[in-house]
Amino acid sequence: MRILVVGTAGNVGKAAVAELKPRHELITAGRSSGDVRVDLLDASSISAMYEKLGKIDAVVACAGHAYYGKLAGMTETQFMMGLKDKLMGQVNLVLLGTPYVNDRGSFTLTSGVLDRDPILKGVNGATVNAALKGFVTSAAIELERGIRINVVSPGLLQESAKKYEGLFPGHEVVSSARVGLAYAKSVEGALTGQVIIIG
Amino acid sequence: MRILVVGTAGNVGKAAVAELKPRHELITAGRSSGDVRVDLLDASSISAMYEKLGKIDAVVACAGHAYYGKLAGMTETQFMMGLKDKLMGQVNLVLLGTPYVNDRGSFTLTSGVLDRDPILKGVNGATVNAALKGFVTSAAIELERGIRINVVSPGLLQESAKKYEGLFPGHEVVSSARVGLAYAKSVEGALTGQVIIIG
Repeated sequence: MRILVVGTAGNVGKAAVAELKPRHELITAGRSSGDVRVDLLDASSISAMYEKLGKIDAVVACAGHAYYGKLAGMTETQFMMGLKDKLMGQVNLVLLGTPYVNDRGSFTLTSGVLDRDPILKGVNGATVNAALKGFVTSAAIELERGIRINVVSPGLLQESAKKYEGLFPGHEVVSSARVGLAYAKSVEGALTGQVIIIG
Repeated sequence: MRILVVGTAGNVGKAAVAELKPRHELITAGRSSGDVRVDLLDASSISAMYEKLGKIDAVVACAGHAYYGKLAGMTETQFMMGLKDKLMGQVNLVLLGTPYVNDRGSFTLTSGVLDRDPILKGVNGATVNAALKGFVTSAAIELERGIRINVVSPGLLQESAKKYEGLFPGHEVVSSARVGLAYAKSVEGALTGQVIIIG
């Protein structure tokens, strides 16, 4: 399959690439690295990327940030950051990308652990992750030509544990290999409208 | 209790008011009706409302619209509409209102059926409803002074069935009386971080 993977600088993106690369033709995209440059905050940048690539079989999105900070004193601007970046960015990959995806192709988005196992300072991420679940649940019944959509919800990656030290007390870490498998399950399998939890 | 109810023009707001009014002092707020006027799209309008009201025991939000339309061809502007209105509007009621809520007070937000029972043209509502679930799940573990937060997820109200005719095939309608009880459960009970489903 010809697969676009957006966001390959982070550990989740690297896990998806490591699993999919041996069996597929991957095109990587990112803000400052990858085969193609794309800014997920800018719909015209997303459209330009798809226009350039032409037809693809699958889109895998591992990109987007949410805001980490205390609920008390959080501002609308901080909260909107995650909504525009991790949520609207991935949603726009679907809204704008569907015409470029071949029949029986797929979208695989990425959420995370925060909505199913909340932490202090994680309310923005919890909101965005849950929103992505709602989005794929509903988009799955509307996508045509057999196109499928799922979201992978990985727990804290072993490789990322150091970066988030202290934020996730008591959370079991998950291996990159297990997270990679979740993307293969979505892309190569037949599921749609599902949250694939690697917890 | 002294309870602020935001959004009392719609059938859900009316159901909440009918249930709570006999036992509490209600202050109603809305864009074009109610004791106080407030525009949920404008954070400064929300702050001005709280400033005017002073201390309250509970905030009940039954306000906010999502966008109804086909996934194919949906634009970022249309999708952001629901995120700004029904999601960010209710989130701002919490972010800006917490200092005005008395110890052991509560917030009760409103989502809906679309994330747990999706319909065609409902992807924006499904996303927003799920997001509200993620928000209360996480906010509940951060709110201080014993303040609680829940979200009521009502099915299609009997009174609203005509308005949404054809959009919700096969959905059982729920009575206003049952929906009203959900708000009493959240405000007068001890739950926090919960989705109260009236399906």
